[in-house]
Amino acid sequence: RNATIAQIRELRNKYPVMWIDAVGLGDAALIEEMGELLGLHRLSLEDMATVPQRSKVEDYPHHLFAVTQIPTYNGDLCLEQVSMFAGKGFVLSWREHAGNCFDIVRKRLQVTNGTTRSSGVDYLLYALVDAVIDSYFPVLEQLGEVFDELDDRVEADSEPACIAQMRDLRHDVRQLRRIVWPLRDAIDDLVRSPPEQITQETLIHFRDCHDHAVQIMDTLENYRDAGSDLRDYYATSISNRMNETIKVLTIISTIFMPLSFIAGVYGMNFDAHESGWDMPELRWKYGYPFAMGLMAVVALGQLWFFRRRGWIGKGKQRGKSVDEG
Amino acid sequence: RNATIAQIRELRNKYPVMWIDAVGLGDAALIEEMGELLGLHRLSLEDMATVPQRSKVEDYPHHLFAVTQIPTYNGDLCLEQVSMFAGKGFVLSWREHAGNCFDIVRKRLQVTNGTTRSSGVDYLLYALVDAVIDSYFPVLEQLGEVFDELDDRVEADSEPACIAQMRDLRHDVRQLRRIVWPLRDAIDDLVRSPPEQITQETLIHFRDCHDHAVQIMDTLENYRDAGSDLRDYYATSISNRMNETIKVLTIISTIFMPLSFIAGVYGMNFDAHESGWDMPELRWKYGYPFAMGLMAVVALGQLWFFRRRGWIGKGKQRGKSVDEG
Amino acid sequence: RNATIAQIRELRNKYPVMWIDAVGLGDAALIEEMGELLGLHRLSLEDMATVPQRSKVEDYPHHLFAVTQIPTYNGDLCLEQVSMFAGKGFVLSWREHAGNCFDIVRKRLQVTNGTTRSSGVDYLLYALVDAVIDSYFPVLEQLGEVFDELDDRVEADSEPACIAQMRDLRHDVRQLRRIVWPLRDAIDDLVRSPPEQITQETLIHFRDCHDHAVQIMDTLENYRDAGSDLRDYYATSISNRMNETIKVLTIISTIFMPLSFIAGVYGMNFDAHESGWDMPELRWKYGYPFAMGLMAVVALGQLWFFRRRGWIGKGKQRGKSVDEG
Amino acid sequence: RNATIAQIRELRNKYPVMWIDAVGLGDAALIEEMGELLGLHRLSLEDMATVPQRSKVEDYPHHLFAVTQIPTYNGDLCLEQVSMFAGKGFVLSWREHAGNCFDIVRKRLQVTNGTTRSSGVDYLLYALVDAVIDSYFPVLEQLGEVFDELDDRVEADSEPACIAQMRDLRHDVRQLRRIVWPLRDAIDDLVRSPPEQITQETLIHFRDCHDHAVQIMDTLENYRDAGSDLRDYYATSISNRMNETIKVLTIISTIFMPLSFIAGVYGMNFDAHESGWDMPELRWKYGYPFAMGLMAVVALGQLWFFRRRGWIGKGKQRGKSVDEG
Amino acid sequence: RNATIAQIRELRNKYPVMWIDAVGLGDAALIEEMGELLGLHRLSLEDMATVPQRSKVEDYPHHLFAVTQIPTYNGDLCLEQVSMFAGKGFVLSWREHAGNCFDIVRKRLQVTNGTTRSSGVDYLLYALVDAVIDSYFPVLEQLGEVFDELDDRVEADSEPACIAQMRDLRHDVRQLRRIVWPLRDAIDDLVRSPPEQITQETLIHFRDCHDHAVQIMDTLENYRDAGSDLRDYYATSISNRMNETIKVLTIISTIFMPLSFIAGVYGMNFDAHESGWDMPELRWKYGYPFAMGLMAVVALGQLWFFRRRGWIGKGKQRGKSVDEG
Repeated sequence: RNATIAQIRELRNKYPVMWIDAVGLGDAALIEEMGELLGLHRLSLEDMATVPQRSKVEDYPHHLFAVTQIPTYNGDLCLEQVSMFAGKGFVLSWREHAGNCFDIVRKRLQVTNGTTRSSGVDYLLYALVDAVIDSYFPVLEQLGEVFDELDDRVEADSEPACIAQMRDLRHDVRQLRRIVWPLRDAIDDLVRSPPEQITQETLIHFRDCHDHAVQIMDTLENYRDAGSDLRDYYATSISNRMNETIKVLTIISTIFMPLSFIAGVYGMNFDAHESGWDMPELRWKYGYPFAMGLMAVVALGQLWFFRRRGWIGKGKQRGKSVDEG
Repeated sequence: RNATIAQIRELRNKYPVMWIDAVGLGDAALIEEMGELLGLHRLSLEDMATVPQRSKVEDYPHHLFAVTQIPTYNGDLCLEQVSMFAGKGFVLSWREHAGNCFDIVRKRLQVTNGTTRSSGVDYLLYALVDAVIDSYFPVLEQLGEVFDELDDRVEADSEPACIAQMRDLRHDVRQLRRIVWPLRDAIDDLVRSPPEQITQETLIHFRDCHDHAVQIMDTLENYRDAGSDLRDYYATSISNRMNETIKVLTIISTIFMPLSFIAGVYGMNFDAHESGWDMPELRWKYGYPFAMGLMAVVALGQLWFFRRRGWIGKGKQRGKSVDEG
Repeated sequence: RNATIAQIRELRNKYPVMWIDAVGLGDAALIEEMGELLGLHRLSLEDMATVPQRSKVEDYPHHLFAVTQIPTYNGDLCLEQVSMFAGKGFVLSWREHAGNCFDIVRKRLQVTNGTTRSSGVDYLLYALVDAVIDSYFPVLEQLGEVFDELDDRVEADSEPACIAQMRDLRHDVRQLRRIVWPLRDAIDDLVRSPPEQITQETLIHFRDCHDHAVQIMDTLENYRDAGSDLRDYYATSISNRMNETIKVLTIISTIFMPLSFIAGVYGMNFDAHESGWDMPELRWKYGYPFAMGLMAVVALGQLWFFRRRGWIGKGKQRGKSVDEG
Repeated sequence: RNATIAQIRELRNKYPVMWIDAVGLGDAALIEEMGELLGLHRLSLEDMATVPQRSKVEDYPHHLFAVTQIPTYNGDLCLEQVSMFAGKGFVLSWREHAGNCFDIVRKRLQVTNGTTRSSGVDYLLYALVDAVIDSYFPVLEQLGEVFDELDDRVEADSEPACIAQMRDLRHDVRQLRRIVWPLRDAIDDLVRSPPEQITQETLIHFRDCHDHAVQIMDTLENYRDAGSDLRDYYATSISNRMNETIKVLTIISTIFMPLSFIAGVYGMNFDAHESGWDMPELRWKYGYPFAMGLMAVVALGQLWFFRRRGWIGKGKQRGKSVDEG
Repeated sequence: RNATIAQIRELRNKYPVMWIDAVGLGDAALIEEMGELLGLHRLSLEDMATVPQRSKVEDYPHHLFAVTQIPTYNGDLCLEQVSMFAGKGFVLSWREHAGNCFDIVRKRLQVTNGTTRSSGVDYLLYALVDAVIDSYFPVLEQLGEVFDELDDRVEADSEPACIAQMRDLRHDVRQLRRIVWPLRDAIDDLVRSPPEQITQETLIHFRDCHDHAVQIMDTLENYRDAGSDLRDYYATSISNRMNETIKVLTIISTIFMPLSFIAGVYGMNFDAHESGWDMPELRWKYGYPFAMGLMAVVALGQLWFFRRRGWIGKGKQRGKSVDEG
């Protein structure tokens, strides 16, 4: 629910732990006021308000500051920045836009009234970080589906439109990697040298967060390699098709050029009537069948040559046996 | 043999060390009960039930938790998750599906009644980890055979079907690497800073496990490089074949185009009877032999040119000398 | 304002902290004099005067020495070296050429008379380093725009001129990386093991500088990957276009070679009047329509074959559906 | 000389240091007996008997265990496993096959009776390791020669047989790297944290071994890069040749197609006698010379065009000037 | 000046610090004698005499030993090994061949009689190392010029001779990297954990050496990337040219094949006198102009098609606008 700064001040004195979920980075005055009220460092507020920010966890004198991105994917990859401040008795989360990614935390708070609310700032911070990290998994799944679909399409027809889409996909994967990498490092740092606010029990939960982040990284590495493979596959496919096209050209040329040449020879106008040496074939009784036969022999010879080289017929059968094998 | 939770509780008090080999991740209630009985941490149970999990060894307050994958290969690579818990007086292994990979441990237990059973939880854990790691070697061998076979096929005919298979193989190798890498790291961590449950003597055995994991990694690196090499080899082969095809096309065109042109010239209808300048060759006595001779000279000249360039004849001989050398 | 060495000596005694902003590396005598006046190490002066220098922060007995580059981009990437010395009561910045990159520091000094001027040498040094790092962001933005523009152009027509520009761009990105990498490392070192001159409060500000440097590196990595992608995309585009060109050639050859052959056959001069076997078609009433019909059948057969292979017509429709999808 | 287990037991009591050089991994009983006699750990014996093993130095409770490979090259790369055990008063080396690689150690022992024999187990171990490492250098030289030879052949004619050989060579280099890498690491570990058996003086010698291993790695890296370069060179050569072939095809087609067309035009059967518009050239006095002249003009125009494009003549001269420059 | 071993022994007692500059590795006896006189370790003498040696600095019991390479470039890259020994009261440098690279040290010694000579062994060692490192810069500049020149040539005409030169250049850069890399590491080690002989003041100078080595590495990395870029650029250029060549072929074929076909049709010998269906065009008054007009229409149609595809005319204009933009 919406609350004014004044209300927050009041509530703060009432409850030992308070979670403030702020949205929108436009109102500089509000940010300033909130910062003053909770004693937040100026640099952390600046980082919060500047988009995009690299994922990090920083230990300021009076509070922890964490910033990262929440991804959504619907064809394009969108990133929303979320900052978290954890000080004495409060956790402040501040997002660019309203979203439903913290609903799970809110629900958990309502259900486990006794457990989470009371167990302090560190567990609340963990719950928020966990919610952020879990928001990556659906995006990964969507990307995986796009990969599978693209894979099928490349295999089916290698159309130019695929290159552009492959490039977009690779770009998205790279961008995600660039966000998750420092996120993983930040949580790793947190787990290795935990600030004093965080209890041993919550640390085990943060270790679990770290595991999830590592798993996301693994999947992204996988996608990255799959992307390179797909690109190589596409390039080889094009080479293969070009090869096929050139083969068709060569077969046609090699068969018809000699035939046309023979036809051309018997189209010469040497006067067979004038000299016995000048194209006597033209006056042979079976001259025409002889020429046609010669052509047939040449054409069949060529076909035999191509078949032996595996360019026609045999090649297809071999291809089939592979599909079956 | 199958046992109920109640039986386990009973048996636990009877024997100092107990190995429980559970199968199937579907029964959430059973997992819960077992976790409560043995005092397992909630997060470790969650990790056990979530597939796929990254290989890791984690030190929880009351027990060690290890999770990894067992591979099987029959054309496709299948992975089955196995989790191990080692606490005071018990080792619990929990697999997705029943398999025969722990048979060797069971046999060892029956044979060396005196040694293994009594030598405690740490040695039992080692025996299980060893069995898991040893299950990778047959898969590696199978992959190696597929590589060799593919290698032969690429060398023989570079058919398009090879690309797809190469890609699958590369994908499998990459997936295995992604599993074995953290497995190796986890065992390395275990050896470097061993938890107190593990004795010095068992540590030497774990060091041996680590060696095996490193060796698996080495083989996989080898396969990965072999995969890239194969891909490059295939691409170069296609280029080579395209080159050959284009050479055939060029040779045929270069020989027959001038010949056809000459035939075309003497097929022109200039009226040799009307003017002495118009194609007197047509009325020469040896006009036709002259034209045929001209063509033969042109054709032989081309053949000589191609032979000197090494495109025909000589090229093949050179190729042979290489095979002999 | 300009000041002589004598004036500086005078002013130095008057104010607790002094910022000297020197420009130009030509006057060796001035550098020597200045070095003596402020007690600067000979090696640091040599480094300052040698262009280009790798970014670094060095801790000399009596002063800190920092050197880095300020980039400007207007089609070509220009780099200007800037050195900073921070000793007891003075900060000396020395640039190759006069520029407006320190104007922001000057303005800050005039505005916050009370804060910055008095807060000592370390904050002043931070302000200068911050100004230098902030000067990279506009350059990154300009490079990003060039990338976008190049991207559009490659997609539109793959002209040869693009390769040269891509190469220039990749070179610029690489050069920037090579400057920012040691800069980031130097600031990281400074933050990890800060020299005693730097207070805890200023350190937080330097940590912010480090963050910015890391962000610049991230963007540059991104540009580098985008550059490789663009190159691959361009190469694949060329392959695709070559494929298209060869297809046109093959289609034309495959259609017209058989047609020309048929025309050639009926252009042979066998004497149909002499023997019933010699080209009776020539005397058929519908010989000509028969020949033309034969040609039409052959041509349509070829077109049908190409259409079935997806080389004409259908291929374009498929391409469209992709653009819509 | 051959010795039985009994003899070894006897001799062991007589001499302070003993070197046993065993050959052959087949006799499991002998290995067992030897292991018991000298107090070797079961796992180290297992490693010794399993081929191939990764190079490593391991510190067992009662002895050091080292295992590595000795390479030989005669067209194919062969690897022979050698294990070394160094305990109190004995060094045991165990090879797969008898070879002459330890002859140098034997000779050294006979010559420097006073120095080596007495200076203890650690120096003897060093001598063996040194002999193993020195056995790599002749193999590297042989590989280098094969590289040079292949290099010359690729430059001369880019025949398909080269690809297969290049791949074999790259594979050999990779395999060697995979052996030497852990060997270097193992010696590095030994030098950094030496077991107590090794004296300071011998350590300097082991440092020298490490240097040699690093040098072998350097050479192998060099070969690896040379291998990639060769592959790229080969691929570019093929592209270049294909380009040349296509140029020949294009030149021939471009010259003869228009010529054939002109000949075809004057081969048309329009009846010049029937109408003044129908091919009057056929009845011109100089019609034939005119047609031939037209063809000559077209052909020369094409040649001029190709020469200007640098496809013929000029191109070769430029090529020469490069060879001279 | 030349000196005998005896003279050295004498002079050694006279001066506190002595620099011996030896040349030539052939005289094993001299090396032995020198080693004995100055108390040098046998292994360091062996390393000195073996060429090539990896750059390193080693701390022997009685002296420091450093070995590296001095490069010279005149078309080919030549490397000369230089070893340096620094013990109590002496520095011994030993080179393969006489060269002028230490002249600068000699000059410095003569000029600054008071400073360098007296300031001890460590400064002298620094001066020598500095001279060696500075000898790399002219080589880098020469390589840079070769790169620029090659760059221009690739851009101008992509002749096959470029590939070989590119490969040589890449090889030289790689070789230099392989020398400078351990040199940098060695100096880095020296600076991080300096042996006791080296004073704090000289250490700052060694830090400067390290900086120079890092800068050389940076330049070499740059050259390496530039080399890869050049290779890619060359490969793309070849693709582009092949594309252009194939376009010319396709345009010519596509224009002349239909024309030749039309000419072929009207060259058929169907007897127009015999039947009204057989080629009535041949007897039309404007038959010939009709045929020529048909050809012109076909040819212009093709040209229009190619122009619309951007293969002729328009393409060039677009190219120009890019050069202007």
